[in-house]
Amino acid sequence: MNNNPHRRYNVLTGDWVLVSPHRTKRPWQGKQETAIVKKVDSYDETCYLCPTNIRMSGDKNPNYKDPFSFVNDFSALLSNTPDENYTNGLLQGSSERGVCKVVCFSPDHSLTLPLMKEENIQKVIRLWKKEYVELGKLPYINHVQIFENKGDVMGCSNPHPHGQIWAQESIPLETSKKTKQQAEYWGKNQKSLLFSYLEQELEMKERVISENEYFVSLVPYWAVWPYETLVLPKRHVQSLDQLTEEEIVSFANMIKDLTTRYDNLFNVSFPYSAGIHQSPTDQKDHSEWHLHMSFYPPLLRSATVKKFMVGYEMFADPQRDITAEQAAETLRSLSTKHFSSN
Amino acid sequence: MNNNPHRRYNVLTGDWVLVSPHRTKRPWQGKQETAIVKKVDSYDETCYLCPTNIRMSGDKNPNYKDPFSFVNDFSALLSNTPDENYTNGLLQGSSERGVCKVVCFSPDHSLTLPLMKEENIQKVIRLWKKEYVELGKLPYINHVQIFENKGDVMGCSNPHPHGQIWAQESIPLETSKKTKQQAEYWGKNQKSLLFSYLEQELEMKERVISENEYFVSLVPYWAVWPYETLVLPKRHVQSLDQLTEEEIVSFANMIKDLTTRYDNLFNVSFPYSAGIHQSPTDQKDHSEWHLHMSFYPPLLRSATVKKFMVGYEMFADPQRDITAEQAAETLRSLSTKHFSSN
Ligand SMILES: O=P(O)(O)O[C@H]1O[C@H](CO)[C@@H](O)[C@H](O)[C@H]1O
Ligand SMILES: O=P(O)(O)O[C@H]1O[C@H](CO)[C@@H](O)[C@H](O)[C@H]1O
Repeated sequence: MNNNPHRRYNVLTGDWVLVSPHRTKRPWQGKQETAIVKKVDSYDETCYLCPTNIRMSGDKNPNYKDPFSFVNDFSALLSNTPDENYTNGLLQGSSERGVCKVVCFSPDHSLTLPLMKEENIQKVIRLWKKEYVELGKLPYINHVQIFENKGDVMGCSNPHPHGQIWAQESIPLETSKKTKQQAEYWGKNQKSLLFSYLEQELEMKERVISENEYFVSLVPYWAVWPYETLVLPKRHVQSLDQLTEEEIVSFANMIKDLTTRYDNLFNVSFPYSAGIHQSPTDQKDHSEWHLHMSFYPPLLRSATVKKFMVGYEMFADPQRDITAEQAAETLRSLSTKHFSSN
Repeated sequence: MNNNPHRRYNVLTGDWVLVSPHRTKRPWQGKQETAIVKKVDSYDETCYLCPTNIRMSGDKNPNYKDPFSFVNDFSALLSNTPDENYTNGLLQGSSERGVCKVVCFSPDHSLTLPLMKEENIQKVIRLWKKEYVELGKLPYINHVQIFENKGDVMGCSNPHPHGQIWAQESIPLETSKKTKQQAEYWGKNQKSLLFSYLEQELEMKERVISENEYFVSLVPYWAVWPYETLVLPKRHVQSLDQLTEEEIVSFANMIKDLTTRYDNLFNVSFPYSAGIHQSPTDQKDHSEWHLHMSFYPPLLRSATVKKFMVGYEMFADPQRDITAEQAAETLRSLSTKHFSSN
């Protein structure tokens, strides 16, 4: 079946992806991104994320040395939005409260996660954990979305290493789907869905990229993006909150391992959106939830040719050409020594 | 509520979109697309879609004068895929049969829908109708997705005016969601959901862009893309198959009207993915279905600045800045005379 067009079920969301393995040979005449490997300085006086610089809000960044977070000057969500509902025939809307934060991973403008020291990636994880806990405690926050958009092809407007957190009242669709699927499995098996899935992948091995003491990276069977990956803790934990110091060390090591492989794939600073999915902060019991981090990178064939999720993908289902197994094999074979260090 | 962050319900899919109307003022430092207004010739000897040229498959295009369709040389779906299922623990897949076609809208390489004569757009609609009927009759085809990717920012690898059709065994997610929502409404009201929605929009007027004898274009209340639009027949028809000749004339007129406004928005050949959603061809009763065409254009601020659906949008929910009402007002105010004709 793996050589012919087929669909694969995403057990974590309940959705399907169309896989066309025979199609990798099609020629490409379309858009090429420009792969600019710019030499970037450690400090940029025009960057609103660099230490001591003044942001658009007029606020001045402290001379921070460790990962630093602040409320987004152009937040999509606000904490003081008045509570309102709107219903008019078939139209239905409701106000949404929330907080948007920016997380600077490092004071050094020239770095990215794969170029950072592991101990400094650990600090980023500790800050994510702190933010998840603190934001999650706010009475009007039921969901905390931690993510990173990397690269201008992913709409990232500043190369300074940073991510974002959008925390809000409602539970977004992706998390709702995952809650439903995990709860169903938990109800039937009293076991975490992703724990069982990980057991199976570790036995089959063909989609596993890398494994360390407490974490595993793999290309999920149902991957949509060409080199999509899933980073999983081996222990069934619901959220960052529950990670031990040893697990944080392992997690940082795995992030460095994976993002270095990514950069080495096409010898370019690899663009992606990465996100952490974990238990909603709605005060309900979420025993079913299993923390994980996903990477959705758009590049398909080279540093300049990406996969477009358009047309069929927008109106029907996601579609991919190379199989998850092929992508895993490629990523597994790559060096974990960064190409720029040669 | 419309000035503060809020969520809107998409009654057609059951999903929500986050709207941040206060956020339109945020500065843009990110990626700019290059807006190249190339002078294109009517015939390009290197184009595999132009009449009389030889395609990669070795096939020679006829010297076609009217819209012309053929099976995609690099089809994502194949009609002869053997029927197989795969289940292994938490992994589940199944083979998928289908047909992928390319539809050349015109022999003239230099045209786009807004630059075509209405009578020639009518011919495109007649070909879509024929393909929907013929493909839909194949025993292994339960869904026919007609779409167009326009512009290289939408992954379109050739400027020759063309669209695609991917017809397949399974009902894709978007159509399943719409079937469910429409069937629920139909069951309760014995009335088409989109018919009722259209009645409400025509009464409220604030999101309507244009109206002719049998068709209306509007920005749906739940629009995700900045200038997303919905084109609706006034009569409750399930599929293209049921359109009368008069309705086809009206539909062509509405497509030209809308795509001309789009080009006039930023004085550029406006990129988008457009798709037609209609009744599945699975031989079931689909009285609930109401044919419609949607346009998902990525441009946000100018010919070179697009909206990125990344990060938050991938891991949580779609998000937009300008409201549907603002977008409708802008599109409504634009001329229906193409900027290039001045
Ligand atoms: O078939 P094309 O034009 O080569 O490819 C384009 O449309 C397809 C269907 O929407 C997408 O899957 C591709 O990612 C896109 O580049
Ligand atoms: O907040 P930024 O970096 O300006 O904006 C970027 O990330 C946001 C959250 O994923 C998206 O909504 C924007 O489309 C994208 O350009």
